[in-house]
Amino acid sequence: MSNKVLVVGSGAIGGFYGALLAKAGADVTMTCRSDFETVKRRGFRIDSRELGSWRFFPRRLVQRSGEYGGEPDFLLLCTKVKPDLDRAELIRDAVGPNTAIVFIQNGIDIEAELQAAFPDNELISGLAFVCCNRIAPGEIQHLAYGRLLLGNMPSGVSDKTRRLADLYRTSGIEAETCEDIVGGRWQKCVWNAPFNPLSVLSGGLATQTILQNQESLVRRIMTEVQAIAEAAGHPLPADIIERNIAMTRSMPPYKTSMLLDFETGQSMETEAILGNTVRAAERLGLDVPCLQSLYALMRLREQQSATGLGGKHPSHN
Amino acid sequence: MSNKVLVVGSGAIGGFYGALLAKAGADVTMTCRSDFETVKRRGFRIDSRELGSWRFFPRRLVQRSGEYGGEPDFLLLCTKVKPDLDRAELIRDAVGPNTAIVFIQNGIDIEAELQAAFPDNELISGLAFVCCNRIAPGEIQHLAYGRLLLGNMPSGVSDKTRRLADLYRTSGIEAETCEDIVGGRWQKCVWNAPFNPLSVLSGGLATQTILQNQESLVRRIMTEVQAIAEAAGHPLPADIIERNIAMTRSMPPYKTSMLLDFETGQSMETEAILGNTVRAAERLGLDVPCLQSLYALMRLREQQSATGLGGKHPSHN
Repeated sequence: MSNKVLVVGSGAIGGFYGALLAKAGADVTMTCRSDFETVKRRGFRIDSRELGSWRFFPRRLVQRSGEYGGEPDFLLLCTKVKPDLDRAELIRDAVGPNTAIVFIQNGIDIEAELQAAFPDNELISGLAFVCCNRIAPGEIQHLAYGRLLLGNMPSGVSDKTRRLADLYRTSGIEAETCEDIVGGRWQKCVWNAPFNPLSVLSGGLATQTILQNQESLVRRIMTEVQAIAEAAGHPLPADIIERNIAMTRSMPPYKTSMLLDFETGQSMETEAILGNTVRAAERLGLDVPCLQSLYALMRLREQQSATGLGGKHPSHN
Repeated sequence: MSNKVLVVGSGAIGGFYGALLAKAGADVTMTCRSDFETVKRRGFRIDSRELGSWRFFPRRLVQRSGEYGGEPDFLLLCTKVKPDLDRAELIRDAVGPNTAIVFIQNGIDIEAELQAAFPDNELISGLAFVCCNRIAPGEIQHLAYGRLLLGNMPSGVSDKTRRLADLYRTSGIEAETCEDIVGGRWQKCVWNAPFNPLSVLSGGLATQTILQNQESLVRRIMTEVQAIAEAAGHPLPADIIERNIAMTRSMPPYKTSMLLDFETGQSMETEAILGNTVRAAERLGLDVPCLQSLYALMRLREQQSATGLGGKHPSHN
């Protein structure tokens, strides 16, 4: 059984989950843009507390998906989801009729773009519960967790999805399939929606500090997400908030991915994580004032970063 | 009729409103701490677009209110209202039995501290609608507006309050008395509650930019303030929000006082402007999710500034 994989996006997520598939015996090609020269010379280095450290040389390294040539069984899309990136365009040249498109990405309602562009392809939605960092070109540090949740869009679990989960289990991480992956995406949103924006808007606080100081706001945002998920037909487990609070307490103090993007001057996943969540609430007629406030504030923050204002204005008492 | 005035707090507000009283013929003593030496040598310089420019040498300059000696008819308290400043302590040594304490300060529920410390003194609450800056020690730039609203606590207008308003009108600015100055304070809060925190949390945007980009959030916060004021027994004019929106549109792009404090590393009036507003809502049983979110975020921002965190944390996807 052929397991030809093309990974698009070679940051922390793409590098880590691509390396694991190679470890499990798959035929893995990586696309790599900015880090191409370094990775070509030295491969990826995965440094994992749980899985050990190893160097990963992909079967092939390409700069654009179009260079792949053949038809991958799985195309793993592992970029961030940002308005300035056309994800369909990024993978179009490598998608064949039998390619399953697997997107391991954060956010709510991020599949429509792919469904519209590739209506006849199998679409597998993936959620990574992992702490990992790209600390230098081709160098990925895996700090904790790693669990992958996989399911087909709009629902169900195909044989190919099971095969992919098996490969990941072989590689040494937890991988589960899920009949309602859209619900799974909402579950992840319960954590992402508060902690990602709060980490940026607080000026860079770690998740634990946020929780220690403003737990009631965190809970209220989580409750709003839970209400949207329920209204959208994906009721979440009753203890989802308690579990997320407990998990965050026991985590080492993390910087969120949004905060890292902010600090390095990159665009953030504001729309995928927060904007689409607020828009889902609006479509469903739900009032979510805390999420709306956070979203509006993030937009202002982005506005400020974009214009680099800071000129001298007079003050108003 | 004696108009002996002691001004405590010689920033933009104290300097400007103290200089105006001297201009109107009052006997004005200023307290001055950090700028004492400069002001002693050169006086205050007031540079006003509307009122012209002049140098103001107070009758006396002291470093602490206790040095005043006699009993002022009016003690003008013009500091910022911050948890780390004991305002009663600051003025205690200069308050005589016939001293009217006038506080020209921002915030909600900021009078209790003064009422408790000076239960037998007349207490005059003042609101300054003004754009002015302290641009250097003793140098005050008056950019726009200047209207002063004065009224007695808990309500009403005394002869002394009228006298003070007359003095200000003589000096060339608008001054009005108000039977319900607590309601006036809520009116000012309609502007302060959104724009002060949003300017900080957005990373430094000017008021017009905030309004242009997130008008609906601004309106929603204003609506929450209006509801609290009404529940507190101070219903605001029906068009208060429209007036504030229109006024902000027509203002030059200002930096709020909270933003200036933030940028210069000083503590902010978060509690006076936002914390007390949220607590008033809680006492009255009102849900104000946007104000609560802003308040929680400001507390996180202050937490971050206080600890100067920013250490290297691992990232979480």
